[in-house]
Amino acid sequence: MIDGTQAEYVRVPFAENSVYKVPEGMTDAEGILLSDVLPTGFEMGVQYGRVAPGDVVAVIGSGPVGLSAVMTARLYGPSKIIAIDLDNARLARAADFGATDTVNSADPDWQDQVLALTDGLGVDVAIEAVGVPETFTMATVIVRPGGNVANIGVHGKSVDLALNELWIKNIDISMGLVNTNTLGMLLKLVTEHKLPAEKFVTHEFSFEQILEAYDVFGHAGEHDALKVLIH
Amino acid sequence: MIDGTQAEYVRVPFAENSVYKVPEGMTDAEGILLSDVLPTGFEMGVQYGRVAPGDVVAVIGSGPVGLSAVMTARLYGPSKIIAIDLDNARLARAADFGATDTVNSADPDWQDQVLALTDGLGVDVAIEAVGVPETFTMATVIVRPGGNVANIGVHGKSVDLALNELWIKNIDISMGLVNTNTLGMLLKLVTEHKLPAEKFVTHEFSFEQILEAYDVFGHAGEHDALKVLIH
Repeated sequence: MIDGTQAEYVRVPFAENSVYKVPEGMTDAEGILLSDVLPTGFEMGVQYGRVAPGDVVAVIGSGPVGLSAVMTARLYGPSKIIAIDLDNARLARAADFGATDTVNSADPDWQDQVLALTDGLGVDVAIEAVGVPETFTMATVIVRPGGNVANIGVHGKSVDLALNELWIKNIDISMGLVNTNTLGMLLKLVTEHKLPAEKFVTHEFSFEQILEAYDVFGHAGEHDALKVLIH
Repeated sequence: MIDGTQAEYVRVPFAENSVYKVPEGMTDAEGILLSDVLPTGFEMGVQYGRVAPGDVVAVIGSGPVGLSAVMTARLYGPSKIIAIDLDNARLARAADFGATDTVNSADPDWQDQVLALTDGLGVDVAIEAVGVPETFTMATVIVRPGGNVANIGVHGKSVDLALNELWIKNIDISMGLVNTNTLGMLLKLVTEHKLPAEKFVTHEFSFEQILEAYDVFGHAGEHDALKVLIH
């Protein structure tokens, strides 16, 4: 079992079953994001949430995985992508990643703000990218009848699901660990600059600067750090 | 708003938008089941649960709607249909409706019994047809990774959803009120005797016997009554 490693070279058993060759012209900064950040947001958020042309999509949580969902949702031609987060700096970044609208969920009327961006009935797809009960519930209260809730978050607790209110709304709830079956396609889109994966990397360090790199990532808020790349 | 009626004739506003002509050769007993029992089990259970050829399907609850799911699941060629209920008489009826296997959930090892009917990983589709938290949870513990939970039950309370265990299982949870968009197709299959809808009607009464009919339906267990038809 290998959960990760930090080294210049590493031997990976059965690597031929799971690795892709980085295409000519792809930078390390682009390639590294394809290992799981970008496919997780795309597969578990956008694909499992079945985003379709014209949809209003809400993404709750503007961390790297939520931003991946924001960025890749555009591939299916939604009409709006609403980023929802507690932090205005994160929301500003979400707008840079492709969110058409942002709502700060610390606002007491955040839910009304989201509904006002739809026809009043709610969003077509609500993507949860945090992993706590509160944000999961947020997804279920803003989804429209017939819509989809796509849970990307890794949860440590069970959640209260209001089936008494939701059963009649014909919603669908998906969840999961990334399959990475779309890696080949995503590699192509990133190489062709259709997906600006490099945006995730805010800081780069050499291997000798690894302690500094950890310090920056450990205080991500102060440094406005998203992903820190070590060469 | 009309929630229902008891009369020989009734005027239905805008009926032309929602009624179907009963086909030549269809009996009242067959036709009446198509108003919502059969489509509910089919659409909310089988279709929303995305039953596919070869699947192992479990249906929790062997009331009329659960039995509809049992009966119509066969349309998609599953390998097994497991009926799960607390009552052996209901389970015997489920077998008559097409269940290939039955499990009494009062048995302490009911879950092991279900898993033993799969490859040990769980069922492909778990259909909940009761509407209480316990049976919803049952569906989530017997579904395999990558499988679907289809909730048909009308719930009066919220449920505890173990997202901390389920998030990594890539399951899908659907729910809903019947759309009735499959009525035309079901009418055809029932008329052609591909679906034995008449099995649901265990007792028939004339309009003059309505009090007796209510008494039988009110003590359904004693009379082994499923659906009571008043002509």
